[in-house]
Amino acid sequence: MATAPLAPGATIGILGGGQLGRMIALAAAPLGLKTHVYCPDPDSPAFDVASAHTVAPYEDEAALAAFCDAVDVVTYEFENVPAETAKIVSGRKPLFPDARALETTQDRLTEKTFLRKLGLPVPDFAPVDDRDGLAAAIAAIGRPAVLKTRRFGYDGKGQILVREGLAIDQALAAMNGQPAILEAFVPFRAECSVIAARGRTGEFRAYDVVENRHENHILRSSHVPAQIKAETAAAAVEMARKIAQSLNYVGVLGVELFLVDGPAGERVMVNEIAPRVHNSGHWTIEGAATSQFEQHVRAIAGWPLGSTRTRGEVVMTNLLGAEATRWRDLLSEPGAAVHLYGKGDPKPGRKMGHVTRVKS
Amino acid sequence: MATAPLAPGATIGILGGGQLGRMIALAAAPLGLKTHVYCPDPDSPAFDVASAHTVAPYEDEAALAAFCDAVDVVTYEFENVPAETAKIVSGRKPLFPDARALETTQDRLTEKTFLRKLGLPVPDFAPVDDRDGLAAAIAAIGRPAVLKTRRFGYDGKGQILVREGLAIDQALAAMNGQPAILEAFVPFRAECSVIAARGRTGEFRAYDVVENRHENHILRSSHVPAQIKAETAAAAVEMARKIAQSLNYVGVLGVELFLVDGPAGERVMVNEIAPRVHNSGHWTIEGAATSQFEQHVRAIAGWPLGSTRTRGEVVMTNLLGAEATRWRDLLSEPGAAVHLYGKGDPKPGRKMGHVTRVKS
Repeated sequence: MATAPLAPGATIGILGGGQLGRMIALAAAPLGLKTHVYCPDPDSPAFDVASAHTVAPYEDEAALAAFCDAVDVVTYEFENVPAETAKIVSGRKPLFPDARALETTQDRLTEKTFLRKLGLPVPDFAPVDDRDGLAAAIAAIGRPAVLKTRRFGYDGKGQILVREGLAIDQALAAMNGQPAILEAFVPFRAECSVIAARGRTGEFRAYDVVENRHENHILRSSHVPAQIKAETAAAAVEMARKIAQSLNYVGVLGVELFLVDGPAGERVMVNEIAPRVHNSGHWTIEGAATSQFEQHVRAIAGWPLGSTRTRGEVVMTNLLGAEATRWRDLLSEPGAAVHLYGKGDPKPGRKMGHVTRVKS
Repeated sequence: MATAPLAPGATIGILGGGQLGRMIALAAAPLGLKTHVYCPDPDSPAFDVASAHTVAPYEDEAALAAFCDAVDVVTYEFENVPAETAKIVSGRKPLFPDARALETTQDRLTEKTFLRKLGLPVPDFAPVDDRDGLAAAIAAIGRPAVLKTRRFGYDGKGQILVREGLAIDQALAAMNGQPAILEAFVPFRAECSVIAARGRTGEFRAYDVVENRHENHILRSSHVPAQIKAETAAAAVEMARKIAQSLNYVGVLGVELFLVDGPAGERVMVNEIAPRVHNSGHWTIEGAATSQFEQHVRAIAGWPLGSTRTRGEVVMTNLLGAEATRWRDLLSEPGAAVHLYGKGDPKPGRKMGHVTRVKS
């Protein structure tokens, strides 16, 4: 695959038409780049801001081929791009981040094994394929632990806390027969993330470490700067750099971390990697010199990365479900930047928008 | 016309598909609003970021009717919307700013007469319809003066400086037989502008006064804050408020001013009114709490206006013609926000993009 840098006027293909694809498209336009969004859902919010779109299943080879012919480079907004889709695309156009980034992060077991091999601190883990495997894993790791499906989990879906007293069969039932992984429960003080980017030539830039608060496993708010020591933050960024370099990664990635207090002071452990722009990076639109979306576009375009300087104290709050109906109040609040994703149905917990407040 | 405030999910119709329409569309999307761009030019840059577009002449009644049926409110990105187009649209959907704002500002004579009636300082002027009229106007106003076509002038097109010695016939020839206006030449120290917005309920907000530098009559750069006294700036904003109020204006407007040094100190005179977002307001995208484009969307949507707070010392520089080929260098400059308009042909003097630098 030729990987010459894009020129203004080129078209970025985006797999996935949700709010992340929408915000990538909105960041590409001011740089003179067009976008073509591919998504099976005819009501995709990203279609509204893209120069072209394709409605087709991810398995539709002919549609994927036509899509690839129409674009200059392909990226995605979700990590569950099917391996076959990634293969078809990669054979026709440069795919950033590439198929290896997808493979490594789609499966929690592959991901954790990759991280451990890199020498990064991760919670203890063991694969769980059946009842005996779960019993052995619990014996090795102890309780509490978290049993998770290896694939397709997000926002707490496909996981169960294995406390004292929880029957093995009950835990296993929650996996719905899917391959799983048992992870030691980490008594974290806080959850953090590093949003970083790596360019095609290896250039690496990270934003300030973000502190994230969750409710019902869904991101509630992100806070910058995180309340952690400078050396802990530096260690976290170093982990992200190691991950990106080892994967020969191109684009923005999110590395979710646990902040843990231990006898030797605070430290971070890697929870998971998101090979894409990340909800905990939305604050960068107003809160940093370059947004994560523009940074992603720059990276996959083969362009120089932008400054990641933070503009002040920033809080990004998700608008979940009916909370987005408060849009008018939020618009009246001085300094609140309101983002609505153009989604129709405000199901409880659904990410309908977000609001960012910067105190400079 | 019903003028209930828009709800997220509504569609804004935009007449005109250039960079201003494009940036309005890019500002509407994060607020959950869709855009439908109407433009005769099939290569309009705004089409790339709008949910829908119509390619048709501004005189096409059927196309305008279908366009109006598809949108909830209509705005425009250029002041030369034909009166007939405005009338057709106004009969079907709310048009903001309205037909009166267009009428008042499309004709320099009507505009200057309106401003003088409002009691605002304008250069002396007189209508010129023929050779005798020009001779009389020169006798009344003196030389140097500027002879301008009453309509369709922009970026210095359709005007000529009437110095000592310039033959009347030569001046008149430059008008190509069109009705004209002679204006006294103002020996200004600087050119300034006020970018302001008025909401549907009369709410008014202005940005800090902008100082503008031109080259060959084309805006080269805008600087904030302008090097003027606080009371001069306040007087300029007051003029914009008076204009907006008198027109019952809804949306963003740009008021171009001359800064003049006189025996009583510095003062401003009104040069012209742009009933739309304005090139000298592009700095607000990164340099103000709310961009002029979001502000315009808020105003025409019937929503509360946003904060106009300036974020620091801001310089916006237009990228004219081939200057946009420097995009890669500009992208490498820390803190430079690069905007490319997605136009094809970099004709000399054509506005291809801009770059904004904020020092905070």
